Amino acid sequence: MTVNTNEEVRAAIASLLRIGEPGDGLLKRLVDDIGPVAAHTIVTVVGRGEATADEAMAGLNSTGAEAATHGQMREAIERWAVRAGDEDVAVAGRDLDKIARLGGRLVIPGDEEWPSMLDDLGPAAPLGLWVRGTVSLTRALSRAVAVVGARAASNYGTKCASDLAWDLAAHGITVVSGGAFGIDAAAHRAAIAREAPTIAFMAGGVDRFYPAANADLFEQILATGAIVSETAPGMTPMRHRFLLRNRLIAASAQVSVIVEAGWRSGALNTARHALELSRQVAAFPGSVYSASSTGAHRLVREHEAELVTCSDDVIALMDDHAPALFDTDSGASQRPDPLEDLGEREKICLNALTVSKPLDVGTIASRAGLTITGALSSLTVLDLAGLAERRDTGWVKLRVRR
Amino acid sequence: MTVNTNEEVRAAIASLLRIGEPGDGLLKRLVDDIGPVAAHTIVTVVGRGEATADEAMAGLNSTGAEAATHGQMREAIERWAVRAGDEDVAVAGRDLDKIARLGGRLVIPGDEEWPSMLDDLGPAAPLGLWVRGTVSLTRALSRAVAVVGARAASNYGTKCASDLAWDLAAHGITVVSGGAFGIDAAAHRAAIAREAPTIAFMAGGVDRFYPAANADLFEQILATGAIVSETAPGMTPMRHRFLLRNRLIAASAQVSVIVEAGWRSGALNTARHALELSRQVAAFPGSVYSASSTGAHRLVREHEAELVTCSDDVIALMDDHAPALFDTDSGASQRPDPLEDLGEREKICLNALTVSKPLDVGTIASRAGLTITGALSSLTVLDLAGLAERRDTGWVKLRVRR
Repeated sequence: MTVNTNEEVRAAIASLLRIGEPGDGLLKRLVDDIGPVAAHTIVTVVGRGEATADEAMAGLNSTGAEAATHGQMREAIERWAVRAGDEDVAVAGRDLDKIARLGGRLVIPGDEEWPSMLDDLGPAAPLGLWVRGTVSLTRALSRAVAVVGARAASNYGTKCASDLAWDLAAHGITVVSGGAFGIDAAAHRAAIAREAPTIAFMAGGVDRFYPAANADLFEQILATGAIVSETAPGMTPMRHRFLLRNRLIAASAQVSVIVEAGWRSGALNTARHALELSRQVAAFPGSVYSASSTGAHRLVREHEAELVTCSDDVIALMDDHAPALFDTDSGASQRPDPLEDLGEREKICLNALTVSKPLDVGTIASRAGLTITGALSSLTVLDLAGLAERRDTGWVKLRVRR
Repeated sequence: MTVNTNEEVRAAIASLLRIGEPGDGLLKRLVDDIGPVAAHTIVTVVGRGEATADEAMAGLNSTGAEAATHGQMREAIERWAVRAGDEDVAVAGRDLDKIARLGGRLVIPGDEEWPSMLDDLGPAAPLGLWVRGTVSLTRALSRAVAVVGARAASNYGTKCASDLAWDLAAHGITVVSGGAFGIDAAAHRAAIAREAPTIAFMAGGVDRFYPAANADLFEQILATGAIVSETAPGMTPMRHRFLLRNRLIAASAQVSVIVEAGWRSGALNTARHALELSRQVAAFPGSVYSASSTGAHRLVREHEAELVTCSDDVIALMDDHAPALFDTDSGASQRPDPLEDLGEREKICLNALTVSKPLDVGTIASRAGLTITGALSSLTVLDLAGLAERRDTGWVKLRVRR
C-alpha cells in the first residue's frame, strides 16, 4: 500500500463524507480495510465509468470481502459511484475551502482532536467530522453529558434542563446536545451562561444553522464550544440524518440524560443508541399528567434509564475511570486549567503525545524537536500534572477533567 | 395438650394483644409453640406472683427454647407479666364485649376471615386483629394494593392518589392504606366514591378514629370496607405503633405504591417492610423541585421501587398467581359476584374449605353437614366457579378477584 499524504487522506475523507450517508457500515469497513484514499479511488473509478464495480473490486483481494459479502460490497460501490466522479473531487475541495473560510476544520481519525470514544460505534463510526468552534473536541468530550429531550418542552422541563446543564458546567462537564428547540436549547444556553464549552451535533452541514431561529444560540456555541457534523457543509438536515446524528450525541457522552420526552420523542432514539453502546442512560421524572414526560417515564419503568433528579445523580452515574484532577465545587470559569501552568516546552511535548498509542522518549523528542533530556524533563512535569503517564510500552497523554 | 374451646382461645388472644406490643416476635413464637391459652396461662401465673418466670418455664420443656434462648424468654415473660394478672383477664373480656357492641370482631388465625398473607410476616405476624366493617378481610385482600404517602401531600400527589385508587377500585382491587391525612385519605376516599371496599389499618384501637378530623371518612370506610388494628380497643396510637402498623399494610397488599413521600416520610417505612417481605414496591414520579417527591424518587433511583404512573402499571406489577375470573373493565359495583350465584349448599360447602389446608371429601361433608354425594356435587359447582380446586391431597378454597 502506498503512503498517502495528510492532504490526500483529508481530501478523500471529505469526498467520502459526501458520497456515503452517515452510519454507512460498508463504507466504514472499506475505509478501515484499504484506507480512505484507496476506497475513494475505487468508488471514483466506477463513478467515472472507467471500470465496473466487479473490476474495481478485483484489486481488493480478500480484504473487503472479509467483513461483507462480495455481492453486498458490489452493490454498495455501485450506489456510492452514483455520487462519485470528476465532479465529486472538485466539490470535496470546495467543502474543505468552505470550512477553512468558516474558520473550521475537518477532523479525522488519527488527528489529535479526534474524539476516540466515537470509535465505539464500530462500523457505524463516522469517517470524519466537520467542526466549527473554539474548543478541542478531545478535551471538551473528556467529561461530557448529553442533555436531550422534547422540542415541545414544558416550562418544567426547560427549567430542569437549564438547571442540570448549569450545574454540570459548574463541575467542568461539557454539555452535549442537538441544538433543537426546547430541552436542547435550554441545555446549551445554561452551559453558555456558565461560560463553559457546549457541543451541538447537527444533522445538516455546520454552515447551516438549523433551526434557523436558534441562529443566535449557534453563534454563542461557536464562541466557547463547537458545532459538529459528519454531513458536508451546505447539506440540509433530513429526517434520517437526525436519527443518525443522535448516535454521535450518544457516543460522545458518558451519560445521556433524557430530560423530557413524549411517547415518540426523538430523544428516545438517542437513548436507544446510548443503550446499544452500553453508555449510561438517565431520565428526569415529571408529572404523570404531562405528555412531555411519558417517554422518559417509560425508559425508567422499563429499566432502560436510571432516574435522576439533579446533577449530583448524573455525576454519580458517570464513568469514574477518568482521573479526577480537581474535586472542588467551584465554577468551571474559576477552575485552574492544568494546561495554563505549562511551559512552552511541555506544551509542545504534550502535543507530541497521543492518548491511544504509547510512544518511546526518542520518538517524542524527535516529534517535539527536543533533546532526549529535554523530552524526559518535560514528560516528568506532565506526569506530575496528571497530563501524561508512563506505561510499559511508552508514554501516553491522559484525558483530564476540564 | 388439652383442647381449648374457641372462646378460650379468643379470650387468650384478646388478652395477649394487650399484654404484648405489636410485632413482639418472642410472644408470637411462644404462642406458635404451645398455643395462645397455654402462653397466656404462663404469663398470667407469673403476673399473679404464683410462680417465677423460671418456674413457669419449667413446664415449657424445650419448646420455647428452640427459637429463643432460655434467658431471652424469661426476660420476655417477666416483661409481659407486668401487664398480666387477674385484672388483665377482665380487661380482655371487656375488649371482646366492646368490639361486639361496636359490631366488630376479633379475627384470629384459623378463622375463615384470617388474612393468611399476614403470616408471611413470620414471627412479626400479628396474634389477632380487631376488625370493624362490613367486608370480609380474606375476600377484600385477595387482590389488594396499598396506596400510601405523605400526610403533607401536594395537590398533585392528592390527585395522583385519588386517580390511582379510583382506577384500582374499578378493577376490583381493594385499596389498603393508613387512614392518615394527605395521600392515605385521598386513596380511601376515591375507593369509597367508586363504591368499592377499602381497608384502613390503624395504629390505635379501632374505636379510636385517628386523626379525629377524618372521622367522617372512617365512618364511610366502615360502610363498605373495614378498619383493622392489632391494638386493643381504646388504646392510643403511638409512634412505634405507627411504624409497626405499617408492616400490616405492606403485608396485606400485593403491591405497595408510594405516591408522594418526603425524604423522611413514614411511607418509606411501609416500603421497607414491603421489601423485606419481597412484596412489590412502586413509586410515583413528580417534580424534581417538589420536596414531597424526594423520598419516592430516591426509592426508584436506588432500585427499591418500580416507577409507576397509573393503575395499569400497578396491575402489571401485581402477582398474577391469583386466577383472573373477570377481565372486563366495568366498575366494581356492576361486577358480578361469584358468591351471589351460589346455592345455599355451595355456600356452606365453601365455608367448610380453607385456603391453605387441603381437606378430603369426607371431612368436608362432615364439616358442612352434607352427604358425601351432596359435598361432591357442591365442590364441582365451586370448582367450575373458580372458587375451589382439587389438589392431590384434597380440596382447597381459592382466593378470587372481587
